[in-house]
Amino acid sequence: MKGQKKIERVLMSVTDKRGLPEFGKFLHDAGCEIISTGGTRHVLMDAGIPVTEIQTVTGNPEAFGGRMKTISFAIESALLFDREKDKVEAEALGIQPIDLVVCNLYPFEMVKKRGADIQELIENIDIGGPTMIRAAAKNYQWVTTVVDPDDYPMVMENISKRGGNTDIETRFKLMRKAFNYTADYDSLIAVTMDERAGEPTLRFAYEKPEVLRYGENSHQKGMIYRLRNAPDSLYDMEILHGKKISYNNMVDLYGALETVRDLKRTGCAIIKHANPCGLCDGSDQREVFEKAWAGDPVSAFGSVIAFNKPVTLETTKFLHLDAKDKSQRKFVEILAAPAFDEPALDYLKQHKNLRIVLFDPARIQPTYDMKFIYNTLLYQDTDRQLLEKVEYVSQKKAPVDEGLMQFGLIAVRQLKSNAICIARRCENGDYQLLGMGCGQPNRVNSTQLSIARCRENLKAEYQGNPQYLEAYIQQKMGEAVLFSDAFFPFPDNVEISYEAGIRMIVQPGGSIRDMDVIKKVDELEMTLIFTGLRHFKH
Amino acid sequence: MKGQKKIERVLMSVTDKRGLPEFGKFLHDAGCEIISTGGTRHVLMDAGIPVTEIQTVTGNPEAFGGRMKTISFAIESALLFDREKDKVEAEALGIQPIDLVVCNLYPFEMVKKRGADIQELIENIDIGGPTMIRAAAKNYQWVTTVVDPDDYPMVMENISKRGGNTDIETRFKLMRKAFNYTADYDSLIAVTMDERAGEPTLRFAYEKPEVLRYGENSHQKGMIYRLRNAPDSLYDMEILHGKKISYNNMVDLYGALETVRDLKRTGCAIIKHANPCGLCDGSDQREVFEKAWAGDPVSAFGSVIAFNKPVTLETTKFLHLDAKDKSQRKFVEILAAPAFDEPALDYLKQHKNLRIVLFDPARIQPTYDMKFIYNTLLYQDTDRQLLEKVEYVSQKKAPVDEGLMQFGLIAVRQLKSNAICIARRCENGDYQLLGMGCGQPNRVNSTQLSIARCRENLKAEYQGNPQYLEAYIQQKMGEAVLFSDAFFPFPDNVEISYEAGIRMIVQPGGSIRDMDVIKKVDELEMTLIFTGLRHFKH
Repeated sequence: MKGQKKIERVLMSVTDKRGLPEFGKFLHDAGCEIISTGGTRHVLMDAGIPVTEIQTVTGNPEAFGGRMKTISFAIESALLFDREKDKVEAEALGIQPIDLVVCNLYPFEMVKKRGADIQELIENIDIGGPTMIRAAAKNYQWVTTVVDPDDYPMVMENISKRGGNTDIETRFKLMRKAFNYTADYDSLIAVTMDERAGEPTLRFAYEKPEVLRYGENSHQKGMIYRLRNAPDSLYDMEILHGKKISYNNMVDLYGALETVRDLKRTGCAIIKHANPCGLCDGSDQREVFEKAWAGDPVSAFGSVIAFNKPVTLETTKFLHLDAKDKSQRKFVEILAAPAFDEPALDYLKQHKNLRIVLFDPARIQPTYDMKFIYNTLLYQDTDRQLLEKVEYVSQKKAPVDEGLMQFGLIAVRQLKSNAICIARRCENGDYQLLGMGCGQPNRVNSTQLSIARCRENLKAEYQGNPQYLEAYIQQKMGEAVLFSDAFFPFPDNVEISYEAGIRMIVQPGGSIRDMDVIKKVDELEMTLIFTGLRHFKH
Repeated sequence: MKGQKKIERVLMSVTDKRGLPEFGKFLHDAGCEIISTGGTRHVLMDAGIPVTEIQTVTGNPEAFGGRMKTISFAIESALLFDREKDKVEAEALGIQPIDLVVCNLYPFEMVKKRGADIQELIENIDIGGPTMIRAAAKNYQWVTTVVDPDDYPMVMENISKRGGNTDIETRFKLMRKAFNYTADYDSLIAVTMDERAGEPTLRFAYEKPEVLRYGENSHQKGMIYRLRNAPDSLYDMEILHGKKISYNNMVDLYGALETVRDLKRTGCAIIKHANPCGLCDGSDQREVFEKAWAGDPVSAFGSVIAFNKPVTLETTKFLHLDAKDKSQRKFVEILAAPAFDEPALDYLKQHKNLRIVLFDPARIQPTYDMKFIYNTLLYQDTDRQLLEKVEYVSQKKAPVDEGLMQFGLIAVRQLKSNAICIARRCENGDYQLLGMGCGQPNRVNSTQLSIARCRENLKAEYQGNPQYLEAYIQQKMGEAVLFSDAFFPFPDNVEISYEAGIRMIVQPGGSIRDMDVIKKVDELEMTLIFTGLRHFKH
């Protein structure tokens, strides 16, 4: 059977010396001859492992300051020849097979990271290593290629179990890993050189595919992948309970985590169709959850919700999952948090379809985001900064709650443009999203939507005499602040806001009609603050 | 000066034989010795060019069915040694420099495309080629690496001009190209092997960077790239006039082109904040433009507009760019079309800030789209199919205009969810978007927004006695069709639509409350059609 000859000759040539003595000793004890080069050879010899110097195999000297060490007819033939078809030819040429290559490459990435100049980068382009790895990988039917020290234990175990050689499945897997490794290596070299030339290119690899039930809709196939070699990824989230996460769930989950990420206290965001329809930042988590929910209690059904602090039982009970009257139970798609108290988890698990996701929003720290539009990539820095300044541009200068300012901007930044949100400081100091309008081609629409939402919410919370409802609404609106993701193009938004009771507006400014807007604000004795920073999001 | 020695020895080993005899002849005439292998050597010899067989240089036979041809101490040394530092050593070892490598690789991609099995794929993994290319590229200070036959004329010209060798800038550029080439090659191998293993991975390369003025907002840096080796890309659009395209422009432009792409007659889409706020498909382009504009005449200002047919002067005149009264001029960001009549172009160029983009929407045929969410990739088929069926589920079965059905679904598919649109067949047979609502967490909001928009538009077009306005609106709404991108979760949307005058609703169906919705429709004697296909878009 192919490849079931024992491993007899091994070539080791590694930059990453982790685990090398142990692996070398294992191979030596298994009766293998170990051929090696330079530093690798020294580490092995220091561990008392006999090593054949590679020059005795290549028949050539190490030359040109180490640029030529392994590349030779002898080595690559030993890796490449077909153990069946080419057996006689190999024997005639005096080529002895090499059955296992353990090799990783010059540390181009490390050298790059420490800001090396082009000459040092060039010296750190490995030529012999990729040749050996690729030759061995091509001949995976017979040859084992190991490029990652983390694989040594697995390979040793496999060799032990299989009586002296790896099995073909393992070799095939290692071959794939080898070509991924050389692809990464040359990708990094190409990108680095292009960058140095002032013509930056981008290369991305995605791995660990998982088939989603479908894409945004059932007639679209959907997949999820992890960015290769990324230190962290939303992909790494842990699903503690519930059925598989869908494509749309992932989009909403990202939005939910992004929204609560920057909240300072205990926060809760409720996402529906990628927009936060409820948001609160405060002290008591259960209360925060209730206030977020109150932002749009109809839309909150079937939403995706994230918390930025460990979730307590008291918080989860707001969902009334154990209510006898099923209509009392609040169904949501996902609850995500950095942790869940054990009783909270038990409580949530009552609902078999609810996904419980463990992921700390603080981990969401991307530095860029990207959009694909027909074989074109749009690449940009993420929108992290909240504001440039707090500039009162109106005659009236009502004091602004700094925390509310941050909160309102976090909310409006997350909404699809054109976006308006109205936020308030509650009596206990919590910040609450009272109403939002988003995704409109015309800013007036968004303003109207946010006001209508506020009015409904205020009506719902009002418990007094109906004849004073309007006064209550006007009073509460007067205490809230309206945030706009971009400037008001016309004074109409000011008038609509005023009529609704709003007395303070925060927007970036920057319109050619700013003066008209300010004039209207002054006329109505409102406060207008310019932040200097727009937050379009599409 | 480094590298200004003439090119004396050349190594040619190519799979793609295009232009080979011409380049070989040029090099021979320039006094170069040409070393070559196998098929390349035959092509050169057939063209009467003297060739040194590579075996006379390597000192080794071609072995193992061609697996070993070039890899040798002699060849890679000749490419890699430092022409200054290693000069004496090279002479002592009898290594003569090779100054130019012309090499491209086994046709792995072609073999893959024709559905080769794993064994054939493996045989088409080139080992010697990448080694030569990478060695030569590493030593670009002295060695020229040519991997692309399309570069032969440039290289010949460069050699001629520079008196027998390429200049260092050219060699650096060719080095970058070489590493991009080997990166592509191993990326394709890795992806192919992973795919065959049933664990597909993805690798993308983007090139041709252009710095955008900024990203979605001015505090975000923005870049645009082209997908490497893509046969077509939105990146390839031609800007005939106007200032640079911005990040947000590109997003809207893509939306505009996607929207008109599938329209059968002459179409026009008007995009604001990524959503179509105006859309028409009809016979006369000027009229179509006017009707699209009428969909939301306020939002249309500053929009991005696409046509699917060559644009005429008559059409462009609707913008009134030459109006003495500046308020009559309609400012839009971009006009895109597959072609522009010369007079139309001249007319449009009056506005210095208007971008005129040449791109045929029919080219927008992506098979997938992707979203990035914190080092995670969501990948899906594009939403191309419009409907599964036309199923009357109501007792009333008013006939549906098939073209209007298609048109309404094209519009609603393009709107951000939750999306509702109301579309009509005009008297002359044109289809027009009468009003839309989108981007809402709650479907009722979208329904209300679309109705409000329709009412405003109908009011604007009505020229009769004001006392009959409401009757007019009711009549026109009754002739229109309401499209929903997803099912109605509750009958409330039906009631709201009915009150607004709507008598026909098209939606995918699939809610657990479909029966309640159908009951309400029947009660109100409306027509309800299920398409079976949802069109969420976020």
